[in-house]
Amino acid sequence: MKFLSGFSGFENNFSRFVNRFSYEEKRRSLGENAYFCGKIIFMRIDIITILPEMLEGFVRCSILKRAQDKQLAEIHLHNLRDYTADKWRRVDDYPFGGFAGMVMKIEPIENCITALKAERTYDEVIFTTPDGERFDQPMANTLSLHKNIIILCGHFKGIDYRIREHLITKEVSIGDYVLTGGELAAAVMADAIVRIIPGVISDEQSALSDSFQDNLLAAPVYTRPADYKGWKVPEVLLSGHEAKIKEWELEQSLERTKRLRPDLL
Amino acid sequence: MKFLSGFSGFENNFSRFVNRFSYEEKRRSLGENAYFCGKIIFMRIDIITILPEMLEGFVRCSILKRAQDKQLAEIHLHNLRDYTADKWRRVDDYPFGGFAGMVMKIEPIENCITALKAERTYDEVIFTTPDGERFDQPMANTLSLHKNIIILCGHFKGIDYRIREHLITKEVSIGDYVLTGGELAAAVMADAIVRIIPGVISDEQSALSDSFQDNLLAAPVYTRPADYKGWKVPEVLLSGHEAKIKEWELEQSLERTKRLRPDLL
Repeated sequence: MKFLSGFSGFENNFSRFVNRFSYEEKRRSLGENAYFCGKIIFMRIDIITILPEMLEGFVRCSILKRAQDKQLAEIHLHNLRDYTADKWRRVDDYPFGGFAGMVMKIEPIENCITALKAERTYDEVIFTTPDGERFDQPMANTLSLHKNIIILCGHFKGIDYRIREHLITKEVSIGDYVLTGGELAAAVMADAIVRIIPGVISDEQSALSDSFQDNLLAAPVYTRPADYKGWKVPEVLLSGHEAKIKEWELEQSLERTKRLRPDLL
Repeated sequence: MKFLSGFSGFENNFSRFVNRFSYEEKRRSLGENAYFCGKIIFMRIDIITILPEMLEGFVRCSILKRAQDKQLAEIHLHNLRDYTADKWRRVDDYPFGGFAGMVMKIEPIENCITALKAERTYDEVIFTTPDGERFDQPMANTLSLHKNIIILCGHFKGIDYRIREHLITKEVSIGDYVLTGGELAAAVMADAIVRIIPGVISDEQSALSDSFQDNLLAAPVYTRPADYKGWKVPEVLLSGHEAKIKEWELEQSLERTKRLRPDLL
């Protein structure tokens, strides 16, 4: 079975099926330690960055806010400069070998990871990098089963390779394009992972009982008014004829998938 | 020629080659209107969203801040609720056909796009959606040549399909994973597009003269100390022997590309 293709939860009747893990399975996999203050904290994500201000709005917003308000997840931002030992709070230095650009130093990164590991056990220490494994929905599902993960955001020319050899457990790329740093990749991963923690999306169960459209793009959706300046909603949707509507929906899904994402069929 | 694979600018010697358009070519393509207050405004991106607070930190930070400080780009956030006509500022409504979920209404979106179009001409009105064309580096290059683009961020079950038929000119997906809304996709696109506007990255020209490593992943990079708790930098990099260093770099690039991204070769 393939999983949903596409980055947005909206507009995919079948997108919620990514949540293939039941609430009970997840509780079991997490064990007793998942309970905190009488509530279940499913997951903690620690993001290490030199630009915490870039991510603050995001962490206090939308799905991450909802997950944190419900005490189902915690997202912590760590300013890498707080883990430097020199008064200039330097996180980068010139590369060996005479290459251009700057390289992120080992020491602050190791200090930060060590401090976090002293507090709890981490399932993964993730580095966002173009040569990493491609992030997709199955990986998001797997990561959402973890209890504690660290995401390290890179910058400049890169990070000292010894960090990758000794401290990183998983290298991940979100797509074939060049970004300025790892912050947006960390944000994308956090959103995709946290939203499939059971209970975060309130209509999870109703979504699971939606008509099954595995491997199909969703049919178009429409709302009022039925006629907007001459742009009309397909008549079948206004007919109230449930069987015909279902038939139309399937036809549309099939047609759009064939045309736009034949690889899914 | 293939373009760089991977989402991050750091750690790719060849990543800057995505900037295949010269400064002069870009100026010509933009014409006289590109001049504003004596400076060249290369690009304006208008993002339409119900969560402007999610993107504000990002827009004031990092590469987007630098591009705006240099007056090479402008990013404007528009709160979709400011374009509603009812006192509840509703942007969504129930779907026709009895489906689950909510659908984004046409009217506020059309009001916003119309207001923007009254001020200037737009090259593209982009909607971020899972069944869109896959965002990659060549698409970022093409979009970075535009003068004005709109990015509409979707939410809920989706947007009324008539918006897509009549108002949207390009539908884009940033990857095969499910996100809560279009905001992070818009942020990813804005970062990837703006960073390749000539002049935004200050060492653009030096990067262009880096050793050419087209279609190869970069070699590992290292910085001081040469020995960190027994983790050592490869000796060749400390040798000062330029030819041997270049040879090592190419070998490493080839080996890593073969192992990690054979599709690039």
